[in-house]
Amino acid sequence: MAPYRTIGVIGGMGPAATADFLALLVAGVAAARDTDHPRVLVDSNPNVPDRNAAALHGADSPGPALAAMAHGLVGQGAALLAMPCNAAHGWADAIRAAAPETPFVSMIDAAVAEAMAHKPRAIGVLAVGATLALDLYGRACPVPVLAGDLAVVQPAVNAIKAGDSGDAVRAALAGEAARLVAAGAGVIIAACTEVPLALGQGDVTVPLINSTAALARATLAAARLPDRMAP
Amino acid sequence: MAPYRTIGVIGGMGPAATADFLALLVAGVAAARDTDHPRVLVDSNPNVPDRNAAALHGADSPGPALAAMAHGLVGQGAALLAMPCNAAHGWADAIRAAAPETPFVSMIDAAVAEAMAHKPRAIGVLAVGATLALDLYGRACPVPVLAGDLAVVQPAVNAIKAGDSGDAVRAALAGEAARLVAAGAGVIIAACTEVPLALGQGDVTVPLINSTAALARATLAAARLPDRMAP
Repeated sequence: MAPYRTIGVIGGMGPAATADFLALLVAGVAAARDTDHPRVLVDSNPNVPDRNAAALHGADSPGPALAAMAHGLVGQGAALLAMPCNAAHGWADAIRAAAPETPFVSMIDAAVAEAMAHKPRAIGVLAVGATLALDLYGRACPVPVLAGDLAVVQPAVNAIKAGDSGDAVRAALAGEAARLVAAGAGVIIAACTEVPLALGQGDVTVPLINSTAALARATLAAARLPDRMAP
Repeated sequence: MAPYRTIGVIGGMGPAATADFLALLVAGVAAARDTDHPRVLVDSNPNVPDRNAAALHGADSPGPALAAMAHGLVGQGAALLAMPCNAAHGWADAIRAAAPETPFVSMIDAAVAEAMAHKPRAIGVLAVGATLALDLYGRACPVPVLAGDLAVVQPAVNAIKAGDSGDAVRAALAGEAARLVAAGAGVIIAACTEVPLALGQGDVTVPLINSTAALARATLAAARLPDRMAP
């Protein structure tokens, strides 16, 4: 049997980011055979109400949909939950309330922990409107957070969601990262799960934290069962 | 709302193949935004009893585990089911019995349909022991099936499951494909979901059918809702 507890993934925001997260969960296991991997239950639901519209314009809250997904995953056997979408962490309380017995691994905390390991004096974040408006990173970071310009980041994220992660999109994100570095950021966090689908470490002159990969590492660490004692 | 019915994925055989399948489901949609994608529920369960051990050595059947996964996915809202593992299709009847109202999209049928579009006189299959012993492709193909040597294919699949899809593994599979082409195969089917993680069209001189990609295309086609009528 797998040496991990069953992982529930609250996904679909966007679908490509969820596929990326599942691949990172697989790649993160030192596996010799299938049974070395955790069981992973995924609900990739693209119909969760839009996080930016809710945070910026008072549209329908994604909270009830996220709570229902959490409840469903736990009902299917998930022993801990993770959600590969930064902005949706603005409604993490709805998930914790729906599954109070089930640990929820925070993507924000996972990315901040990896960023702080580099001891930056300030952190740059490439994020969408909801993540910025709700100050998800500012509230979690012990150092100042410099936000990428939404007028650059949001169109890039939209393009990636539409399947375009080509050179122009990468260059736009790289340019914004460079601007934040010039302003004092010692680390850049790709703080939207679409961003690392286009932007890589080779595009940034300081450490780039992939929030999806950070969540995958934190999730596997939290799901890992203690090594069995010798009989 | 998504213009697709909810897809349930009976997965984890192996975990990397399931991640590959989810990525292909995402890539297969012409999407401008998240809501253009289907909702996808995935149960990536690496603890399903081994298909080869069951088919070749009479070990525990995977049928009950697959039936339980199908039942769980339908309970969560899946309106059709797909399973990205060729060998496990030997127990497809257990899935159909557990979810008699829910269409099950056969990976074998999807791959054979794509292969036959090339009008081959014979088809070569690179598959593991259970798939060959249960003659899953032979029973579905209207033309003769030539099987790759298990002594070559099984070690390659095992290496891929352990994370190695490097040059030696690819060369072994390419060599076996070439042998089948020399024996008369006009098409090669990568008839184990691990095979296309290492072997690509550039490695084979005749059309190579990726059974995972064929299943993704067939699943999206089956899940697609009719275009809404104009009001």
